Amino acid sequence: MIHNDNIIALATPSGAGAISVIRISGKDAIEIVDGFFKSVKSQKSLRDQKTHTIHLGHILKEGKTLDEVLVSIFKDPQSYTGENVVEISCHGSPYIQQEIIQLFLRNGCRIANPGEFTLRAFLNGKLDLSQAEAVADLIASDNEASHQVAIQQMRGGFSNEIKALRDELLNFASLIELELDFAEEDVEFANRDQFKDLIERITKVLKHLIDSFAVGNVIKNGIPVAIVGEPNVGKSTLLNALLNEEKAIVSDIAGTTRDAIEDELIIGGISFRFIDTAGIRDTKDVVESIGIKKTFEKIDQSQVVIYLFEAPLVLRTASPKGKQMLNLKNEIQRIKNKHPQKPLIIIANKIDKLDDIQLAKLNTEIPKVHLLSAKTGYGVEQLTSSLLNLINIGALRNNETIITNSRHYDALLKALEEIQKVKQGMDENLSGDLLAIDIRQALYHFGEITGEITSDDLLGNIFANFCIGK
Amino acid sequence: MIHNDNIIALATPSGAGAISVIRISGKDAIEIVDGFFKSVKSQKSLRDQKTHTIHLGHILKEGKTLDEVLVSIFKDPQSYTGENVVEISCHGSPYIQQEIIQLFLRNGCRIANPGEFTLRAFLNGKLDLSQAEAVADLIASDNEASHQVAIQQMRGGFSNEIKALRDELLNFASLIELELDFAEEDVEFANRDQFKDLIERITKVLKHLIDSFAVGNVIKNGIPVAIVGEPNVGKSTLLNALLNEEKAIVSDIAGTTRDAIEDELIIGGISFRFIDTAGIRDTKDVVESIGIKKTFEKIDQSQVVIYLFEAPLVLRTASPKGKQMLNLKNEIQRIKNKHPQKPLIIIANKIDKLDDIQLAKLNTEIPKVHLLSAKTGYGVEQLTSSLLNLINIGALRNNETIITNSRHYDALLKALEEIQKVKQGMDENLSGDLLAIDIRQALYHFGEITGEITSDDLLGNIFANFCIGK
Repeated sequence: MIHNDNIIALATPSGAGAISVIRISGKDAIEIVDGFFKSVKSQKSLRDQKTHTIHLGHILKEGKTLDEVLVSIFKDPQSYTGENVVEISCHGSPYIQQEIIQLFLRNGCRIANPGEFTLRAFLNGKLDLSQAEAVADLIASDNEASHQVAIQQMRGGFSNEIKALRDELLNFASLIELELDFAEEDVEFANRDQFKDLIERITKVLKHLIDSFAVGNVIKNGIPVAIVGEPNVGKSTLLNALLNEEKAIVSDIAGTTRDAIEDELIIGGISFRFIDTAGIRDTKDVVESIGIKKTFEKIDQSQVVIYLFEAPLVLRTASPKGKQMLNLKNEIQRIKNKHPQKPLIIIANKIDKLDDIQLAKLNTEIPKVHLLSAKTGYGVEQLTSSLLNLINIGALRNNETIITNSRHYDALLKALEEIQKVKQGMDENLSGDLLAIDIRQALYHFGEITGEITSDDLLGNIFANFCIGK
Repeated sequence: MIHNDNIIALATPSGAGAISVIRISGKDAIEIVDGFFKSVKSQKSLRDQKTHTIHLGHILKEGKTLDEVLVSIFKDPQSYTGENVVEISCHGSPYIQQEIIQLFLRNGCRIANPGEFTLRAFLNGKLDLSQAEAVADLIASDNEASHQVAIQQMRGGFSNEIKALRDELLNFASLIELELDFAEEDVEFANRDQFKDLIERITKVLKHLIDSFAVGNVIKNGIPVAIVGEPNVGKSTLLNALLNEEKAIVSDIAGTTRDAIEDELIIGGISFRFIDTAGIRDTKDVVESIGIKKTFEKIDQSQVVIYLFEAPLVLRTASPKGKQMLNLKNEIQRIKNKHPQKPLIIIANKIDKLDDIQLAKLNTEIPKVHLLSAKTGYGVEQLTSSLLNLINIGALRNNETIITNSRHYDALLKALEEIQKVKQGMDENLSGDLLAIDIRQALYHFGEITGEITSDDLLGNIFANFCIGK
């Protein structure tokens, strides 16, 4: 990869708007723009202007004004990429955007690859690799939790910790390797007790970070929640109550198919993906039993199961004595048997239609039942707390470091493996040269995270997922 | 309308992108942002920074970083609106955009109405009304011609001309009104010959501008072109040849309906809207005759008609002697009879399949026939020239002022009417007081264009069509 040319891209979303920003980065960025810019006020060339200043003027194409623009100048190294950067803020017409970009493409710029501005920031040492990755996460974040994690990572919270440990480890590695040079004299530069202590600390941090990935993954991708229940028990009304607005289709006709099988709601800053299922009532009907099979598959893919039933129906006196209640208990037991580890929230809906005796009976018959009236809103707030409690988001609330990136997760797992080898080696009084090999391996995986160790392929993969202009 | 509060809006298109720009304007804009901004480098408050400078830092919400941003400062009156303006360039995530906007909505800003930034620019004298209107046209422009007209108007090309004439006229009006004060002394402050000369000049300019509206309208809205021809004569292929890429559906089956009834192509910087029709072959079939009626309606709405036929079919020797040719001539004559004034381009398609004798016959039988092979591209370039020649775009090429706005057109028509009354009055030696009334009326209509004369209703109408953030 060669990075001494000048790149250009639209930095704002495409389409029409009040303004658009076109970004140019590279050694000649300022001079290139200067050649086609006529300031309204100043006679000075852009090159002679200070960094971090803004200039009103015209972009000229063949002597004609293409647009009246604001040009912002950022001088190497005080810019996002660490190179000379010019941002042209033009009127937000796609025609003007295209004309300006094409003008500079014909005059010394090439179109930037996805993420290339951030790649250059990384290559020029403005960001480490995990910080650069956080930029893409930040742009993609659509809720408070993922936003918070991304911004913490972008600000270096996580990689600083890794870097500090890496430096300490690197220091020991050097000392141990130094011992090798003096092998015949049998000296010990690296204090073994201090080293053991470091290894303990590293192990603890790595394990903590690795554990945090479960939360991080939830934050980044949302929590899948399967809703199990017969048609018409009030699934849509429940989602609406959670959403607090009438978005889903709600209908009284049993079995009304909703417009989407999956609904995403953001509750307490966390994204929950609610997956509707066909229910699991016992049946001999072939078609229905396929539905039940699918329900269990969806439960399988979920992290939380909500079992929803219509309380008045189960408790109605007209029903054959206790039959409905028995069915209900059987179905709940079936789910528990199949998925003993999966958090299950049992919700009795439409409790606004029950009297006190019925309510008491419900609480006795179904332990830990969650009483709800999606219609009146009773129990909705408690339900959202229950959902949030199921997720270990304490770490998030305490501003602890959370891993959300599977690349980091893999590297941390490998680093931990190597560190454990080092520990084992020390316990077995392994010779310094063999120890050093395992330490170097651990260092390698640390370096993969922050980007001290990279390959063109790796960088290509990471930045290919960025949007153009970033 | 009160304009001493602080307004905020997203200025870039909505959606995710590398960056987004949020714009705040108002007396307190800088102080409001200052309260939630922590600079990375400087200890100075934003208020103490110079105008047209950029500052890297964090937007803080309850002490937590919401985003790392660049803040651009523009101080009253050196800004777009003429007020204090802050532009916050943040990461382009819709979540971040919303969080930042909501933060400032809770702290002294309100959301801007559509066009309100430009409205303020107008009210603060940064732009006249026609320039402000050009901003919206500029953003909406999607081709070279409409872009060029809009930018010329935004730069004041047209309103400067109007303003100069208005000033001269105003001068004469004052002199004539002064005469009224000295009515008993029978003096003449306003030189009647000079005044006649001015009226002549104004009349000429007004007529010229009014005439330009026909071109302006074409530039702004595109030129509707009806394509008349039987199914399978090659309408899609023709459009593709003009477009120079395979966008429309092309098929060999007669009567294949294309995906759109209207295709817009930009040729030579001008937008042409091609409207497909069902043809007009003579028939007794009721359904077909409805189709023919519709074809004529579409011709009615068009500015240009293209009659397209398949040359080999018309000339094939197997056909009953001359019958096809006779039909063709009849159809062309029918169009000419119904629309004698409408420009008609007769195109013989598929001429690659003709021999020299057939070509000669074609040229003899159909005067001014345009020979074309959409397949090989023969005649396509000449067709585009013919289309462009039909439009009087000389004015555009010569950088003349062109009116595109029907509001301006109306005001110019009314101004011309009043000016003609003034002229008539002078010819009839009308008394100064009566002359003055007509002159004031003309001045009023001039003022409507540039905005010296406005009403809240008028401003509301104009700016309601802007996008939010401009």
